[in-house]
Amino acid sequence: MERPRHQGMAKNTNMRWRLPLVCLLWEVAMIVLFGVFVRFGPEADAHWEEEKQEMNLTSDIENDFYFRYPSFQDVHVMIFVGFGFLMTFLKRYGFGAVGFNFLLAAFGIQWALLMQGWFHSFKNGKILIGVENLINADFCVGSVCIAFGAILGKTSPIQLLVMTLFQVTLFSVNEYILLNLLHVKDAGGSMTIHTFGAYFGLTVTRILYRPNLEQSKDKQGSVYHSDLFAMIGTLYLWMYWPSFNSAISDHGDAQHRSAINTYCSLAACVLTTMAFSSMLQKKGKLDMVHIQNATLAGGVAVGTSAEMMLTPYGSLIVGSISGIVSTVGYVYFTPFLESRLHIQDTCGIHNLHAMPGLIGGIVGAITAAAATEDVYGKEGFIKAFDFTGMYRTRTPSIQGGFQAAGIVVSLLMAFAGGGIVGGILKLPIWGDAAAENCFEDDVRPGPGGSGALPQVPEDEESDVYHMHNPDKPASP
Amino acid sequence: MERPRHQGMAKNTNMRWRLPLVCLLWEVAMIVLFGVFVRFGPEADAHWEEEKQEMNLTSDIENDFYFRYPSFQDVHVMIFVGFGFLMTFLKRYGFGAVGFNFLLAAFGIQWALLMQGWFHSFKNGKILIGVENLINADFCVGSVCIAFGAILGKTSPIQLLVMTLFQVTLFSVNEYILLNLLHVKDAGGSMTIHTFGAYFGLTVTRILYRPNLEQSKDKQGSVYHSDLFAMIGTLYLWMYWPSFNSAISDHGDAQHRSAINTYCSLAACVLTTMAFSSMLQKKGKLDMVHIQNATLAGGVAVGTSAEMMLTPYGSLIVGSISGIVSTVGYVYFTPFLESRLHIQDTCGIHNLHAMPGLIGGIVGAITAAAATEDVYGKEGFIKAFDFTGMYRTRTPSIQGGFQAAGIVVSLLMAFAGGGIVGGILKLPIWGDAAAENCFEDDVRPGPGGSGALPQVPEDEESDVYHMHNPDKPASP
Amino acid sequence: MERPRHQGMAKNTNMRWRLPLVCLLWEVAMIVLFGVFVRFGPEADAHWEEEKQEMNLTSDIENDFYFRYPSFQDVHVMIFVGFGFLMTFLKRYGFGAVGFNFLLAAFGIQWALLMQGWFHSFKNGKILIGVENLINADFCVGSVCIAFGAILGKTSPIQLLVMTLFQVTLFSVNEYILLNLLHVKDAGGSMTIHTFGAYFGLTVTRILYRPNLEQSKDKQGSVYHSDLFAMIGTLYLWMYWPSFNSAISDHGDAQHRSAINTYCSLAACVLTTMAFSSMLQKKGKLDMVHIQNATLAGGVAVGTSAEMMLTPYGSLIVGSISGIVSTVGYVYFTPFLESRLHIQDTCGIHNLHAMPGLIGGIVGAITAAAATEDVYGKEGFIKAFDFTGMYRTRTPSIQGGFQAAGIVVSLLMAFAGGGIVGGILKLPIWGDAAAENCFEDDVRPGPGGSGALPQVPEDEESDVYHMHNPDKPASP
Repeated sequence: MERPRHQGMAKNTNMRWRLPLVCLLWEVAMIVLFGVFVRFGPEADAHWEEEKQEMNLTSDIENDFYFRYPSFQDVHVMIFVGFGFLMTFLKRYGFGAVGFNFLLAAFGIQWALLMQGWFHSFKNGKILIGVENLINADFCVGSVCIAFGAILGKTSPIQLLVMTLFQVTLFSVNEYILLNLLHVKDAGGSMTIHTFGAYFGLTVTRILYRPNLEQSKDKQGSVYHSDLFAMIGTLYLWMYWPSFNSAISDHGDAQHRSAINTYCSLAACVLTTMAFSSMLQKKGKLDMVHIQNATLAGGVAVGTSAEMMLTPYGSLIVGSISGIVSTVGYVYFTPFLESRLHIQDTCGIHNLHAMPGLIGGIVGAITAAAATEDVYGKEGFIKAFDFTGMYRTRTPSIQGGFQAAGIVVSLLMAFAGGGIVGGILKLPIWGDAAAENCFEDDVRPGPGGSGALPQVPEDEESDVYHMHNPDKPASP
Repeated sequence: MERPRHQGMAKNTNMRWRLPLVCLLWEVAMIVLFGVFVRFGPEADAHWEEEKQEMNLTSDIENDFYFRYPSFQDVHVMIFVGFGFLMTFLKRYGFGAVGFNFLLAAFGIQWALLMQGWFHSFKNGKILIGVENLINADFCVGSVCIAFGAILGKTSPIQLLVMTLFQVTLFSVNEYILLNLLHVKDAGGSMTIHTFGAYFGLTVTRILYRPNLEQSKDKQGSVYHSDLFAMIGTLYLWMYWPSFNSAISDHGDAQHRSAINTYCSLAACVLTTMAFSSMLQKKGKLDMVHIQNATLAGGVAVGTSAEMMLTPYGSLIVGSISGIVSTVGYVYFTPFLESRLHIQDTCGIHNLHAMPGLIGGIVGAITAAAATEDVYGKEGFIKAFDFTGMYRTRTPSIQGGFQAAGIVVSLLMAFAGGGIVGGILKLPIWGDAAAENCFEDDVRPGPGGSGALPQVPEDEESDVYHMHNPDKPASP
Repeated sequence: MERPRHQGMAKNTNMRWRLPLVCLLWEVAMIVLFGVFVRFGPEADAHWEEEKQEMNLTSDIENDFYFRYPSFQDVHVMIFVGFGFLMTFLKRYGFGAVGFNFLLAAFGIQWALLMQGWFHSFKNGKILIGVENLINADFCVGSVCIAFGAILGKTSPIQLLVMTLFQVTLFSVNEYILLNLLHVKDAGGSMTIHTFGAYFGLTVTRILYRPNLEQSKDKQGSVYHSDLFAMIGTLYLWMYWPSFNSAISDHGDAQHRSAINTYCSLAACVLTTMAFSSMLQKKGKLDMVHIQNATLAGGVAVGTSAEMMLTPYGSLIVGSISGIVSTVGYVYFTPFLESRLHIQDTCGIHNLHAMPGLIGGIVGAITAAAATEDVYGKEGFIKAFDFTGMYRTRTPSIQGGFQAAGIVVSLLMAFAGGGIVGGILKLPIWGDAAAENCFEDDVRPGPGGSGALPQVPEDEESDVYHMHNPDKPASP
């Protein structure tokens, strides 16, 4: 406790004002930008009554809200409870995981509504939003939550907000390149969300490498109840992943198909994960880390292809393989990444998102290349790949090639973006945590404690536990 | 343990029979009243096939069930998991919070179906119920859960059931005055649910004031895991609040718009809460109490206006302000209320529901007064405010005035009702808890313990932990 | 720790390979069988565009996906979080409960898609699946989760997988007999899921009876936080049960009605459970075991009749009775079953599923027998009981008789099937747990521990906690 901090204390004494300032300034910026740009889309605007007649809709039930809102809520739970609780496994960082995930996601969705809006929903100088925009904003933030997994416990909240700002921006650019310029399909985001988010986060954590983190290795473990909290995160991600992959697919059969493919892939993934977890442990025991994470790889790995005619048995195959790859990754690749490449990957996102994301991109390219009018039907074929307008003449094999190009673009954007953002985060102005404070919520009463505000009944509550904040002095 | 109880023991010796008697008598009353009054509404009745033709509906999907059931389930989760777990932060009262919330809500929804049914769904001597009635019953009980937050840990289950009976009754009367007599819009219940529920609960806790509760201040704190359980409640409330505010809005654009406005408001609220939480703490730390509670104020504060054309940036502004007000409330108002006004507000509902509820009512009044045919469209304007029949000639500014009147009526009903019900709860017949037993589940093995029923294998389980019940003797 | 194992160690030394082998072989079998048999149903296939025109559907919203997907997700949560966390109450078996439930359910849904598909969705040599098949697969696995409750903590994962294989098979046969041969209605599965699943599980645990389990009675207790985790399971089951009972009902009024009846029954059940829990405890305390379990009996007991015109007050009556029966069961029947009949029922499924399931079957038979054209309407009557084709002339009283026959068939299948499967599980090849390892996750570091892989940063995590696996030596 009495060890001196590694960073200069002097520079950080005004830290107390930095988080409030960043939050407030950015929220003001959001209000101004929303005021200038964001309006309700036609299906959420009070003019809908007239709109409905123009669109020849006979019933309110055909409002996009009813097609997508249940899926939106499932995705929302995945982002805030799923990712939040999945990261509570660290025995002394439960608040930090849930709380900072909450902070960055709440900021990120506002910025994502703007960034994605400018690229995809911009009409006559206004961004017109509806439920699909909310889902896409959650998706975009999902990729930030993934990257957060790599640096969990090692960064200050300001660093996380800075990273969120840049990553959401780059995500939107990458997504625009893939979906609009390359005309690639990626409804469940194997490439745009998982591959991009994971390699971005891994690059950032590489740049933020700290050799002396080894000392706090004991804090990187889990305890009994922290592992049960993490299982809440795992199960909500696992259960709602069919909604994730189908949330923005085309109405009708495409949404239906995406859910079925994802359901099948995830079920298979659990079995191969359990098999390899038991096989690779010396005593045949099952490892909670694998069960918490690798069981989800099947959802990532059908992210691109779930809305295609992957077929249920194709999904079982993809899910089986991804479970194996992910579990093997936890046992062999993660230690290798740390010891040889100096990549400290707290949550193992390389195994849960990076590799399965690549598998997902590849499976998507193959499934697209193998598409035929026979399998999809004449109308279904055009609708599934949106082979209309300037893409009228695109063939399945060309589409497969563009899908593969999408993987490469996502990887390049992730490495370049992660490198730049990692460099920015290394600047000494963000108040990053001292090594001995990593992976730890601050659980000591603050100096002064209940003595300072003796008449406050909540005093006890409000001073006993706080999330880690680098501004606290090393010696209280 | 050997200290004598403050209340007379003699009066309470027959306590053991009181809770069962109250529960059973009331359930019998419910069965009789449901038997006399409650029937399925036309969309849930087996005559629907014929009804559908009369209503000119072409498909089963136009049954109200498909418009509202997903939102209903989200609201249901908010009432039972959201409110229940939000209140588990007390380190030794987790069962009491979840369990008594479960009990009062399960009773309350039955009584609410009747009370609200008589006012709003009564046709030819019968109450005809459908999914919208289930949502409204959950809403009504939500206001009781809010009031429960003020008296958490200080009352017996019988007192809670008595309070529920009276509060549901008064809620329904207040709701009838607002919605039917004043023709006020309040789909998310800023006035009817939050303002009414919170000031009702604060009045009750004022009347039940106990000076000697100071001694148990150490039990009012939280512990690491109790705070993580509370975050489950927080996140489910936060994520599903868009469903709460849109659940009973008009089909189509109104539901769609409500969800978007609430989503935006809540996102902004998280940032300003974090900013002010950090700013107002001596060390710039984040306070878990604020993160658990004030982040939700944005949902309360757009409860009335979410279905109106508040616009996304309007929502950001309202959410930002409510996060600030709520956080400041936790730091400054709650201690003031306790020390000066003798209002012991266990969960700080004044900050989470009362003040944001007032903001919500005011924002609703302003938004209604500012409405124009230009913004809403000709048909949309009439539909949004239901300016038909006897309200055909009402103007936006008059509507704004009535909205403001709705706030005043809700406050008056809350103070008067809370005063009367608080007085009733003070009667010495309900077996209220002794001060030293407050905020505490009973975790000692009961006298006799496993010795009494030695052949029971579940004996260990069933005797180790029990929710607090005042009937237990002070000295075991 | 040094006590010798009761089972022969020699036989189990190759145990390490058995779980991986079983998982992998079965997954390969699933892939082959899915490849041969399973295809997308018409509403999930890319040919939907053409199909839609043939079915005269005017909008994508009439795809069955939008009628059933929200209910499917609720059911999915019940199976994985509901049942999984309900069983975490054991203080040292939280991982085993959640993790093994996850494993058996993930395997079971694959096998159920095949088994139920052959019986109900088989056309031209292919099983055509859609969202309704996913719900039915979850339902089928629900009956395995119920049976798991009886043997919780006493079996190896391989035994669970073997049981799942056989139980899913028998479930599908029983379901086919009831729904297709007897033409019985059972949308919420009082008979097919609860009665069958519970008596199957009770028969298995009877056959696996171990007198020496008495020694580990202390591990069968709960602790404060394990009981709060269990409440998560309880509440999700309670809240989503209306979705469970309505998930596969006919579109429109039947789904709507099922949800209302279940909502009412569950609300009433909470009050009578609390009343009897308090009444039957010596000190009037409330028992967490009752609150966690008996409050759910109301959902089970309207499983058959919820989609019928049971009426809200009928539901209150059924819910009230089932809460009483279930609570009384926990206090008196469970000890009797163990001491006299040698049935060790870890979770008390006899009280939560078996008896309420029987009530549900009986209430369904009575409600069907009492049906009249007056109450249902002419068209509604035919639609509700599907009195078409060869069942055109069936009368309500005959239907009631067949419903009653369905109960008897389910019981016989459960006893016979449970007997056979119990015998199979007793074979010494499945590596069942030694008595002293029952009810316990393995929380010791494995031999070798962090020493074996010193360079692995996750080492600490991955070796500290593991789910119980019988292969570990008694003395580390």
